[in-house]
Amino acid sequence: MNPMDRARRELETLPAAAGNGLLHRRALLRHGAALAGAVLGYSVTPLAFAQQLTEDSWSRGPGTVVPEAGLRSRFERDVVRTLSNPKGEPRTQHARTPHHLVNGTFTPNSMHFVISHAGDPDIDPDQHRLLIHGLVKQPLVFSLDALARYPMVSRMAFVECGGNSAPLFSPQPIQATAQALHGLVSCSEWTGVLLSTLLDEAGIDPRAKWIVAEGGDAPHLSRSVPLSKALDDAMIALYQNGERVMPSNGYPMRLLLPGWEGNMNIKWLRRIQLTESPGMTFYESRTYSQVLPNGKAYQFYFLQEVKSFITHPSPGLAMKGPGFYEISGIAYSGNGRIAKVMVSADGGKTWTQAALQEPVHSKAFTRFRAPWRWDGGPAVLQSRAWDEAGFSQPTRAQLVAARGQTDGVPPVTAFPSQHYNAIASWSVAPNGEVKHVYA
Amino acid sequence: MNPMDRARRELETLPAAAGNGLLHRRALLRHGAALAGAVLGYSVTPLAFAQQLTEDSWSRGPGTVVPEAGLRSRFERDVVRTLSNPKGEPRTQHARTPHHLVNGTFTPNSMHFVISHAGDPDIDPDQHRLLIHGLVKQPLVFSLDALARYPMVSRMAFVECGGNSAPLFSPQPIQATAQALHGLVSCSEWTGVLLSTLLDEAGIDPRAKWIVAEGGDAPHLSRSVPLSKALDDAMIALYQNGERVMPSNGYPMRLLLPGWEGNMNIKWLRRIQLTESPGMTFYESRTYSQVLPNGKAYQFYFLQEVKSFITHPSPGLAMKGPGFYEISGIAYSGNGRIAKVMVSADGGKTWTQAALQEPVHSKAFTRFRAPWRWDGGPAVLQSRAWDEAGFSQPTRAQLVAARGQTDGVPPVTAFPSQHYNAIASWSVAPNGEVKHVYA
Repeated sequence: MNPMDRARRELETLPAAAGNGLLHRRALLRHGAALAGAVLGYSVTPLAFAQQLTEDSWSRGPGTVVPEAGLRSRFERDVVRTLSNPKGEPRTQHARTPHHLVNGTFTPNSMHFVISHAGDPDIDPDQHRLLIHGLVKQPLVFSLDALARYPMVSRMAFVECGGNSAPLFSPQPIQATAQALHGLVSCSEWTGVLLSTLLDEAGIDPRAKWIVAEGGDAPHLSRSVPLSKALDDAMIALYQNGERVMPSNGYPMRLLLPGWEGNMNIKWLRRIQLTESPGMTFYESRTYSQVLPNGKAYQFYFLQEVKSFITHPSPGLAMKGPGFYEISGIAYSGNGRIAKVMVSADGGKTWTQAALQEPVHSKAFTRFRAPWRWDGGPAVLQSRAWDEAGFSQPTRAQLVAARGQTDGVPPVTAFPSQHYNAIASWSVAPNGEVKHVYA
Repeated sequence: MNPMDRARRELETLPAAAGNGLLHRRALLRHGAALAGAVLGYSVTPLAFAQQLTEDSWSRGPGTVVPEAGLRSRFERDVVRTLSNPKGEPRTQHARTPHHLVNGTFTPNSMHFVISHAGDPDIDPDQHRLLIHGLVKQPLVFSLDALARYPMVSRMAFVECGGNSAPLFSPQPIQATAQALHGLVSCSEWTGVLLSTLLDEAGIDPRAKWIVAEGGDAPHLSRSVPLSKALDDAMIALYQNGERVMPSNGYPMRLLLPGWEGNMNIKWLRRIQLTESPGMTFYESRTYSQVLPNGKAYQFYFLQEVKSFITHPSPGLAMKGPGFYEISGIAYSGNGRIAKVMVSADGGKTWTQAALQEPVHSKAFTRFRAPWRWDGGPAVLQSRAWDEAGFSQPTRAQLVAARGQTDGVPPVTAFPSQHYNAIASWSVAPNGEVKHVYA
């Protein structure tokens, strides 16, 4: 028996980690990755080998000039955010991250999700100021140059819209990509000055219990934040993945509240007022309230709870024949680090533990991976994450029992549209098509 | 005494961590950051406060449309790589990272350094193939789709040109920015398939001791790599900071050899041949050999040794008056993690230990930071890094004693131009100007 056939035979007889082809990652490593490749079967025929040694057109002459600022390949032009309002009509604009087309543990800046209620303000950073006032001993104004002299920190952090995954409140599974369904969450390395540093300098009046943060965009989006969070890990973020914060993400500075609802991470930040009580601002009184089935609302639902979804395979990425695949996705929690992710290929009947890409950062994306041998039959892929605080994702049935579901396509404020974090499911059909299902 | 004056007084009496104003980071935290801010003195006058509450032009109406792929602010247009050959004449092109204008712990993709000997090939990813052949049991060809099914890993890794910092071999300090002097090093998160996975599948002939990797660019840049490194942490990198590898960095795939000389990380990778001995290719026999004062050469000098430099303050970033500043820079080593970084403000007479941004990744940038009170007098800033293997940066005098120095501006192959990793120094003049010096 030749080595390829032997490897294929071994793979077929390898004990499964869970039903429908999920493999033990350690077993895979122990037997050597040949087990995986064997079923891919991309061995070389003499003809293919000869073809490989011919020159491609791009190898026959000089290439293009290296630019001052690198641009991605023209072959990647379809890797874009999808826009809900591409003409910028006078309503909210959404731009969603193409999670199925990117990889790794954070989001490229050009692909970071955006919700903007009145477009992106074109702020001159030399003119922009941050004011800290209210219940402080000494009001302070900061230019960007002044902030540049303070002690800085860098940290990975996800930002997620409270309405991300809202389509899953629909009673029927909406057929769409991971981008359309879960694209309102992204992760970046943010670098800036801890808000506690600036508040220490201003001097906090003991009566202060909240801050009210306000943006410099036309709607002056503002939100109230408990002072305890402001003094914990809140940051005035000046850099995003190494470069200045992107215009759609708050240039030249935003409030970062790691793990808390996206809209509270005030973009184009211009003002922080310390107060005794919350401001009951427009956006926290109306837009970002969670209405419950009994007609009451969660007024302040700060935390983005533990969540995960599979990005590869996912709708729009057709499977190309049976054999080995890596199931991969992202998990995150506003409570801290991801503790574990379980993966199922049979709709939740059996589960195996996925590998987590180290290092696992607190309140940031964690990439998980699990080896899978697809036998070409029907499968339903699921992931379920636990965080270090002990919380795990509910099933969809559990979530809608508590929160209700819509009778149409959200967002509809009379129906639940916020904080969906239940287990999500993709079905795989024998023809390789991947679809969104409830399972 | 008002709180600002008291804080200023406290700062002035705070015990120093080292000469010429270097502060204890822990002392700073213990006393509260007010100590730092007090000397910045951006407290608000009633007039400034009133001005702050007027509306800036960008707050008075709708902003611009959120784009499909985010672009940085037009106010950041000067943050670019500097190009050695902007017209793409038939010689090598260099693009250097503006380390003084970015921040955080890795390099934005658009700013990653580039050396390209014949421009960037415009590779069609659907046509591109990777061939593994030579001393293997089964030659294999991989399409990008095939590689997408393999187990992947993500890791931070720096890539540095062997000739980075070559201007410091000059007998007089060349006046230039950190970008011009040290801009041929960058750091990214790379995601892809471990080369060991593919070699396991091909099956390694026991006679194989080296691989020869070849690019699909017109010069077919190729380098020999010991098989032990290929089986250790070498990766076929498919993604860079979450998106497909940039065209100038090897799209659609490059060989990543964490911690090893940049040119060995073959871009536009198309072929890996397993061999008994090194290929003695053009680029390893001539361009990337290190000529020593005695006329002999280091033929294979794989490792990029421990190194650091200060990015803030640095030439081109003028100091704006005495008071508190954060000294910040990057450190890295091909041997593994950075163990510590010491900082001096008096040209190496006294030192204090800088804080390292966690998590510290192996063979990746580590951002270090140290608090400093500039008294407005002359200062010479230095950083010196140690890695976990126990190596530290030499002084410039030690390095040139061993390797020689040029009598002109490198690169000149008759003179040393490779693997400069000695301590670098910036002087600060009373007028705030920062200059490159030897100290």
